[in-house]
Amino acid sequence: MRVAGVHQRTIRVAADGRTVEIIDQTRLPFELAVVELASLEAAAHAIRSMQVRGAPLIGVTAAYGVCLALLRDASDAGLARACELLRATRPTAVNLRFALEAMNEALAGLPPGERVEAAWARAAALADEDVALCRAIGEHGVALLEDVHARTGERVDVLTHCNAGWLATVDWGTALAPVYLADQRGIPVHVWVDETRPRNQGASLTAWELGEHGVPHTVVADNAGGHLMQRGRVDLCITGSDRTTASGDVCNKIGTYLKALAARDSGVPFYAAFPYSTIDWTLDDGLRIPIEERDADELACVTGRADDGRITRVRVLPPASAAANPAFDVTPARLVTGLVTERGICSASRAGLASLYPERAAAAPAPA
Amino acid sequence: MRVAGVHQRTIRVAADGRTVEIIDQTRLPFELAVVELASLEAAAHAIRSMQVRGAPLIGVTAAYGVCLALLRDASDAGLARACELLRATRPTAVNLRFALEAMNEALAGLPPGERVEAAWARAAALADEDVALCRAIGEHGVALLEDVHARTGERVDVLTHCNAGWLATVDWGTALAPVYLADQRGIPVHVWVDETRPRNQGASLTAWELGEHGVPHTVVADNAGGHLMQRGRVDLCITGSDRTTASGDVCNKIGTYLKALAARDSGVPFYAAFPYSTIDWTLDDGLRIPIEERDADELACVTGRADDGRITRVRVLPPASAAANPAFDVTPARLVTGLVTERGICSASRAGLASLYPERAAAAPAPA
Repeated sequence: MRVAGVHQRTIRVAADGRTVEIIDQTRLPFELAVVELASLEAAAHAIRSMQVRGAPLIGVTAAYGVCLALLRDASDAGLARACELLRATRPTAVNLRFALEAMNEALAGLPPGERVEAAWARAAALADEDVALCRAIGEHGVALLEDVHARTGERVDVLTHCNAGWLATVDWGTALAPVYLADQRGIPVHVWVDETRPRNQGASLTAWELGEHGVPHTVVADNAGGHLMQRGRVDLCITGSDRTTASGDVCNKIGTYLKALAARDSGVPFYAAFPYSTIDWTLDDGLRIPIEERDADELACVTGRADDGRITRVRVLPPASAAANPAFDVTPARLVTGLVTERGICSASRAGLASLYPERAAAAPAPA
Repeated sequence: MRVAGVHQRTIRVAADGRTVEIIDQTRLPFELAVVELASLEAAAHAIRSMQVRGAPLIGVTAAYGVCLALLRDASDAGLARACELLRATRPTAVNLRFALEAMNEALAGLPPGERVEAAWARAAALADEDVALCRAIGEHGVALLEDVHARTGERVDVLTHCNAGWLATVDWGTALAPVYLADQRGIPVHVWVDETRPRNQGASLTAWELGEHGVPHTVVADNAGGHLMQRGRVDLCITGSDRTTASGDVCNKIGTYLKALAARDSGVPFYAAFPYSTIDWTLDDGLRIPIEERDADELACVTGRADDGRITRVRVLPPASAAANPAFDVTPARLVTGLVTERGICSASRAGLASLYPERAAAAPAPA
C-alpha cells in the first residue's frame, strides 16, 4: 500500500540481512516509526506489546523471530526455545501457531549449520505467500463491491471493525483488500471505520492507512454501527478473523459479534475475510475458543496527542473502578453471510469451507 | 444518593434563593465541581455543553432556567424567549419539551409580577416529582433483580449502557434506581458498566456514582457486552430511555440497540426504565425520531487525567480523518422485554403502555 506516497510492506528484512524492520503500530497515527528487531526477545516483545498486530502479520513476525533466534543459537534447543517463547506471546491467533509450525518443519530436519539460511528463506516465503493470499482475497471480495455498485450506481458503503488492513498483514490486508482493489478499479467506495475500543485500532490504524492510500472514510464510535445499518447507510460489512472454526464461526476483535447481529437485523450482508491459515479445522464450536483477557489499563487509559503536540496517556476511569477487557468475541456462523478467502467466497459452514478446501477438510481430525 | 458519604441531589436552589447549583458532569470522575447558574444563558449553556445531561435532569434544569430568565424579564416576551432558547439546546429529549410546557402552563396565565415566585415553586415541584418517579421506578424494577436472586441464590449481574443513574436525574436515577434499591435491601448486585463512547458517560459517570455509593461494578468497552451475554455473565440489561414511542420503541444513547440485539440473541432480558414524561404518545415509529448528530470532536478527542495529574484532552484520530457522531439510536419494541415505569412494568407495546397509562393513551392523538 501507499504510505506517504511510497509503496511499502509492513515488515521487511533490513539491508544488513540480519535485522528485521517493522512499523511500530503503537505510535500510529501520529508517528510513522520504523523499529529494528535484532533478537528473538525483540520480536517477541513486538508481538506481545502489539507493535505488530493482526493475525497474518503476527505470524510473519514470529517466523522472522525464529530467524533472529537462530543467529545466536541454531541448536535443536535454540529452535525449540524460540518457538515456545513466540507461541506464548498471543494465545488466540492460530496464524502464530501455523507460522511457527511451518518454520519448525522446514528447519528441524536440517543440521544446525544450515538452519539460518533456510530460516530466512522460509520466513521470506511466508511473507510473500501472505501478500499473494491477501491479493487473492481482494480479487474475490471486490466482486461483492462491484455487485453493489452495478446495482445501485452509487458509492459503496462498507463498514469494518478493528484493523484487518495493510497494517494487519504484509500488504493489502484481508478485510480491506477488496476495498483497495475497488478503489484501484475506480469503484467509488467509502468506509465506515469502527473506532474499536479499547485499543482504537480502527481510529488509529484503519483510518490512518485508508487516509494514506486516499480512500474516503469516516470514523464512528463502535456504538454507531447498528444505527447506520438500521438507517440504510451501510451496503456491506467486512471484517477480518483471528480464527475461524471448521463450521464457520468467526472469532475476531471484541465487538464484531454486535455488528454481525445488527447486520442480520437490518438485512446487511456480513462477510469475514481471511486466508486458509486462519481456519482451525480442529474446532467446530467457536465458543470453545479461549478468549484472551487483556490488561484493564487498555480500557482505563487512552493515548493520543495532547494540544501541546506530545503523545500523552490519559486515564478515563475513576481510580477506584474495576475494568474487564476481553479482546475477542465469537460471531456464530448463522450470522455470517459468507467467508471471503484466497480461494473464493463460500457460505459460513463446514460444507462451504470444505467446498473451497476439500483436501484440508478431508485431512482434518474429528472436530471438537 | 451518597456522594463522599453525604446524601445529595444533583440540582438544588442555592441558599440565596436566586441561583441554582449543579454538578459539572463534564469534570467527573476526577473533580466534583459545583457550578452556580445565575442566568438563562448559564442554564442553556449547562444543558448544551452537557454539564448536566440525562433526560430528567435536563428537564428540571430547563425549568430552573425559566426561573432564572424571569428574574430579569418576567414579561410574556421574556417567558417565550426563555422557553424558545431552552427548547433548542437538545433536540431529542422529550422531557425538555415537557418541562418547558409545564412551566409555560403554570406561568403564562399569571400577571408578570406573580411569575417569579410561581416559577420557583413549579420548578421545585418538578424536581420533587422526579425524585418520587425515580423512587417508584426503583420499587417496581427491583422486583426483577429480586426474582433473579431468588432463583439463582447468586450475585445479580446487571448490564447498563450510558448513565441513567443518579446523575441523569435529581435523585435515584431511572435504570439504576432498581440497582440502588437492591443494594439497599441487601441483594448482592454487580453492574457491568458500558464505557459509552464517545462521551464515556459510563466510564466517567455511572462508574463514579456506583463507586461513591459503594455498588460493585466493572467497566467494559461498549464492544464487550455481546461477549458477556453470550457467555452467560449477564442476568439482565437495564438502560434508560430518552424518548419512548407509544408503541414501545426506545430511543436511547447510541449503542443501546446493539445491546438489545445481543440480549435477544442470548436470551437475556432487556428492560428500559423511564418515567411517563419520556413517552411520546404522538409517535408510533421510533425510526421517525430525529437523531441528534453531535460534534465530531467528541469522537476525535478524549479527555482524562494525564500522568502529571492534569485534566488533559488528547486527539485519537488521524488529523485528516472525518468522523461522524450520531448521539442516539432506536431499539425496536420487539427487542425490549419490558418497560419499567413509575406505575409498574409493562410489555413494550401500545397495549402495554395503555395498560399503565389508560388516561394518556385515550387522550393521545392518532400516532404517526
